[in-house]
Amino acid sequence: MKLHEFRRAPNPRRVRVFLKEKGLEVPTEQVDLFKGEHKNPEYLKRNPSGLVPTLELDDGRYIAETVAICRYVEELHPNPPLLGSDAFDKANVEMWQRRAELELLMPIAHCFRHTAEGAKPLEPQQVKEWGELNRGRALSAMRRFDKELAGREFLAGPRFTIADITALCAIDFAKAARIVIPEDCVNLKRWHQAVSARASAAA
Amino acid sequence: MKLHEFRRAPNPRRVRVFLKEKGLEVPTEQVDLFKGEHKNPEYLKRNPSGLVPTLELDDGRYIAETVAICRYVEELHPNPPLLGSDAFDKANVEMWQRRAELELLMPIAHCFRHTAEGAKPLEPQQVKEWGELNRGRALSAMRRFDKELAGREFLAGPRFTIADITALCAIDFAKAARIVIPEDCVNLKRWHQAVSARASAAA
Repeated sequence: MKLHEFRRAPNPRRVRVFLKEKGLEVPTEQVDLFKGEHKNPEYLKRNPSGLVPTLELDDGRYIAETVAICRYVEELHPNPPLLGSDAFDKANVEMWQRRAELELLMPIAHCFRHTAEGAKPLEPQQVKEWGELNRGRALSAMRRFDKELAGREFLAGPRFTIADITALCAIDFAKAARIVIPEDCVNLKRWHQAVSARASAAA
Repeated sequence: MKLHEFRRAPNPRRVRVFLKEKGLEVPTEQVDLFKGEHKNPEYLKRNPSGLVPTLELDDGRYIAETVAICRYVEELHPNPPLLGSDAFDKANVEMWQRRAELELLMPIAHCFRHTAEGAKPLEPQQVKEWGELNRGRALSAMRRFDKELAGREFLAGPRFTIADITALCAIDFAKAARIVIPEDCVNLKRWHQAVSARASAAA
């Protein structure tokens, strides 16, 4: 297997952290988004969506989309389970992974792409008003997640899951959009410190 | 089980179609988004994200997020499989479900929320430029999906899956944003006709 990815982007990091939690080493190839390498014809053959990451399998097939790649890895290497165990747990983990993605990572990504000077190569038609609207949404989501984390160790319960990986990568990427965890979000800060201390966070 | 949902919104329909494909009947309760019922304190106890749909289980627990609900149903009622069978198939279905969601449904939803007069109760700060940018993206996605469907019957291969459900609900909802399938997208039109003819499409 080989992971086509870009070290500075949040979605490939989600896969790298996931692999590290599984104890797996997968060779990587860099696709420089700022040079537009994800729009090269050769890359588009692997992933016509023109996004990173893309997982290349040994038989020449490809899987794109962060969570689809994680699901493939989970199917082949079920331990430790990062996508849940029984029916309710799987659904609960998926719910929290999606909340982390839709309520946190996406507003952060929109804010970065539409307000940061450096994001222009990725988003030529920046809509500043939309970017700033998302800054507020990202901060609201942080406050909401802070409340949820008052009652438990990790986002989806007592165990570290893919939901924590998504939220970690979102919050670390938020710096690029000049968004930081509000001072009074003590539960979110405690959680962020704990997940950042795991070996996988360096991936 | 009971499904808290809103008939006019695309995400609850994804769950309704999914249930119908499984041959399941689940009672529903309407949450009127235009009356702001999804922001009522009682509803927020069920789903603090304030979104529909939310599945209420018989033991009083809740599962929110469309795909998380579908996963729960698939775990309990695996046949017919709508989320894939083996490791590669599951990942491939998830990849296409996410592409349908991120590349098609989301741009359509953004376009509707930010350009339609009737969407103001849902999106008080409409950003027209962002809405129009997404109209273009939705049409590009339709053209891309049209190309993909030249080679196969359904989005993720020879079998109907959750990816088709997401794309169907997206395309039907697009009318609310005044977006229709371009005339020359003959494969997408053929696919749309086929999935619309299934009994589940009426759900």
